[in-house]
Formats: sequence, structure tokens, C-alpha cells
Amino acid sequence: MNKKIKKVAHLGLEGSFSSIAAKKYFGEGNVIWIPTANIEKVFDIVCKDSPVYGVIPIENSTSGSIMETYERLQRNNVLIVGEVFMKIHHNILAKENTALKNMVQCFSHPQALLQCRTLLSKYPSMKLVFTEDTASAAKLVSESNDSKMCAIAGSQAAKIYGLKVLKENIVDNVANYTRFAVISKKESKEGNKISIVFSVAHVPGSLNRILTEFAKIGCNLTKIESRPLVGTPWEYIFFIDLEFVCPLIVLNGILRGLKKQTRFIHLLGIYKKGETYEA
Amino acid sequence: MNKKIKKVAHLGLEGSFSSIAAKKYFGEGNVIWIPTANIEKVFDIVCKDSPVYGVIPIENSTSGSIMETYERLQRNNVLIVGEVFMKIHHNILAKENTALKNMVQCFSHPQALLQCRTLLSKYPSMKLVFTEDTASAAKLVSESNDSKMCAIAGSQAAKIYGLKVLKENIVDNVANYTRFAVISKKESKEGNKISIVFSVAHVPGSLNRILTEFAKIGCNLTKIESRPLVGTPWEYIFFIDLEFVCPLIVLNGILRGLKKQTRFIHLLGIYKKGETYEA
Repeated sequence: MNKKIKKVAHLGLEGSFSSIAAKKYFGEGNVIWIPTANIEKVFDIVCKDSPVYGVIPIENSTSGSIMETYERLQRNNVLIVGEVFMKIHHNILAKENTALKNMVQCFSHPQALLQCRTLLSKYPSMKLVFTEDTASAAKLVSESNDSKMCAIAGSQAAKIYGLKVLKENIVDNVANYTRFAVISKKESKEGNKISIVFSVAHVPGSLNRILTEFAKIGCNLTKIESRPLVGTPWEYIFFIDLEFVCPLIVLNGILRGLKKQTRFIHLLGIYKKGETYEA
Repeated sequence: MNKKIKKVAHLGLEGSFSSIAAKKYFGEGNVIWIPTANIEKVFDIVCKDSPVYGVIPIENSTSGSIMETYERLQRNNVLIVGEVFMKIHHNILAKENTALKNMVQCFSHPQALLQCRTLLSKYPSMKLVFTEDTASAAKLVSESNDSKMCAIAGSQAAKIYGLKVLKENIVDNVANYTRFAVISKKESKEGNKISIVFSVAHVPGSLNRILTEFAKIGCNLTKIESRPLVGTPWEYIFFIDLEFVCPLIVLNGILRGLKKQTRFIHLLGIYKKGETYEA
């Protein structure tokens, strides 16, 4: 990264998993952070004229693709320019001098609550309340006078909002990874990975012919997911990620050629394959 | 269906979307229904010796594959023998003589709450409480003396549990389809659709070679999804569904041949392509 000051909008408050991913990607210095309430608003900020980056979740190892992110990537003139993988640890956080058995309400992002269902089912009288992100839940608990409230969030949020960890690593599936996308209005022209979305006619081998084009130039498929195009029962869209080693000009040639074989094909971004961190 | 009495375990109480899907598939007569608390328990019941079918959600058009179902399909000697597609309408249900603005608590399955986030965000003081299925939420509200409680569930649950529909069709994405799998210990030997799971080495074209085998015999791919094999960063598993027109013996020959080209390949079931209903 160069030393020019960057503006970066991330999902949630400081201490959210998106904010931690953003710091891993951009480093701590020379960045103005813009905590943002939801994915929709991160896209809105990035869409505007000023050069602002965005960091939002795109995929989770257990719950799958985040369709809100994929839908906005398709709609807007915003591209993926980077990615970060994070191993996510959730914890129950509360004020000092209290215990889990006393808790009456638990605040967190709905996905985080879902990922901790096994533990939460042991406390059926505890009411669950959705927040926009995990750090907002921690902040809400820290600012309340009620010692019967807890939050599910990362350990960094505990530090930032002065909360105690009542219970560590409460995720159902211990291997809980989230992939975050770094987005920008300005396309990146370098990298070793691309994301694309396309639709093909529902005939035998149609997907196959496309994958063959990429395999011929040595591309490695790292993700593929089909979604029905709702309302058109015989059409599907495919989201794919590919790692490539060929010159970009060769890959662009393939993409141009595929326009004839697909109903549509959109590049969602070219970027460097991301690193994995723990949080 | 023949007239022998069948036993069918479905997710949730009577009135749950799985129970409605089960009735569409098996018809109303000659069936002993077994309402079951969660997906795990449906599999446990089907796994036991007695011939019991199970009906559970496997995929949703907006939130994607239900990994709990896919994980159990991989682990057990239980196979998919049928499928049903349902267009899901969610509603807010409560007792008579009350209004939405008076509600203090809202009960439902976490996925249903997630699918109605836009509406729920307009009532930030309403506490959300998870239940095992939508019909259980309706039953809970109907049995309570508290008129400030509501449930998110289908219109059938409203009829069964004597509740009023306070607000209809509250789903964020109007095209909200769920696919339900009918499972059994006894393999079906006929149909026009198969589900398989396999893992291949992470080298260019490896997935492709497999899809080519299926395309050669005229199979239509109706679903494909990759998932990272967590802990082994360079391996993926793929879930695919195929519609086939060739004789089953030809398809089985292909599946046997693919054993050499994959790390593993498991048949998740052979079945007849399902119908779509509204609920």
C-alpha cells in the first residue's frame, strides 16, 4: 500500500469482524475508517464519487454466500479489488461482576446468533435481539445500565467496549471462516484471482463448455455456486472464482469470447488472492 | 403412492412448512405423521430400523443450502428419495383483538426471522425469540395468555392454532422458495434426478472432467455448489444435482468410473424431480 491517506468504509462499528478484516488488509496507518450500519450502505458510500474502499463479508464456510453482497455486486459499478479470510471466534460478552446464568437478553448480528445456536438453546429463557453487527451489540451492552444483557462478538470488541468474556469460542462449528471482499469503484488491473457471474441456457454441457475454456489456460476454480433465476425455472446464474497464472490479456480474451456462449457474463473483479487471519 | 400405511417424520409441528411439503408429497390419507423437533432428530428417526420417511428443508432460494441437512446426508446411511419445492409466504400471527404496534415479542425459526428482516427492523423494540420451527412459534403464541406476543409462520399455522394474520407476506424477497428433501433408509431405484457429493484434487480442470462425463450422457446440471473442506485449504467438496434421461445402468457405470478420478464420490439419492406448490 502507498502512503496516501485512504478512506475505508467497513460493515459495523470498530471491533466488528469487517473492521478487523479491513485493518488486516489496509494496515493501521494513513486510513480514515468509516464505520457503516449495513452492507447496503457500504455499497452506497463506495458508489459515490470520492475514492472510498469498502470491506464487507461475502461468504462464510458454514452458512455460504452472502446474497446481499452478491446482489449489490451485480447491480452496481463496484468491483472486488481484494479479499481477506478470517477465522471467526464468537464469545459471550457482558459487564463485570455478572454471570451467564443471570442473562435475560442477548444481542448480536443474526448470523452470529445462528452460528451459536447450540449454546443458545441451553438458555431458552434468554431473549435474542438482532443488531446490525457484532460490535454494535457489544457497544449497546457496554452503554446500558442493565447487567442482565450480554452480546455475542469477537474478543477485540470486548477490549474496545470494556466488556468481560463470559464464555469463549461458542460457535457450533469450530472451523468457522468468513471471507471478506474489499470493494472499490475503481477496477484493479492486477492480481491472480477473478470473480465472475454468468447465466447460461439450461442444456446439457453448457456450464461445462465455459469451465473448459478456463481450464485450458490453467485456471483453478476456487468457488462455484449456482442459484436459480427465480421466475425463470430453466435458467441459472453461476458465481465462480478462479485463480489464474496466465497473462491478464489472455484471460480477458477468454471472457470476451464467452459473451457469445452466455446469456450474460459480468466480471466482479480482479484481485490478489487473500491471506487468512484469526479474530 | 400405494395404500399401505406409511410413517413420515417431518421437521416441526403440524402446520410447519416441512409438514405442508410432506402432505403435498405423500397425500393426506394412510400416513402416520411424526412431528419432530429438529433436522437432527428427523435423521435419527429415519436411521432407525422401522421404515420411516423424513421430510426436511435442503435448500432455500435466497439463503442457499442448509448445511445441517447436507452434513447428515453425508454421514448417514440415509438417502434422498424425493423432493418438493414450496413458495414460502411468511405472515405475522397473533391472538384476536390485538395490533402489530402492541407486540413486544416475536417468535419464529431463525431462518424465518432472517427472511423478514426488513419488516422486523421497523419494530426495533420487539424482542425476537428463536423456536425450532414456525408452527411451534404459532402454537406457543396461541397457548400463552400474553396478547403482546406474535409469531412468524405460514397461513396454515394460523388456521391450526387459531391465530389472526396481523400482516401478510412479510418476506424481504418476494420470490422465496424452499426445496424439501424426502429421505429414507431404503434407496429408491427409480427417478430422473440424482444428487451426489464428491471431492477432487485442486488442479485445473478436475471438476470439469467430471462434469464432462455427465454432459456426454445428456445429464442436465440443476445445482452445483462448492464448499471448502475446512482444515485442508486446497481441497473442495462439490454438491451437484443432475437430471438424467439415460438408463440408470448407464449413469451407475459413470459413477463407478468416477471413483478413480475423485477423492471420494457418494450418491445422495435417486428420485423423481419434484413439483412446486405454494404455502
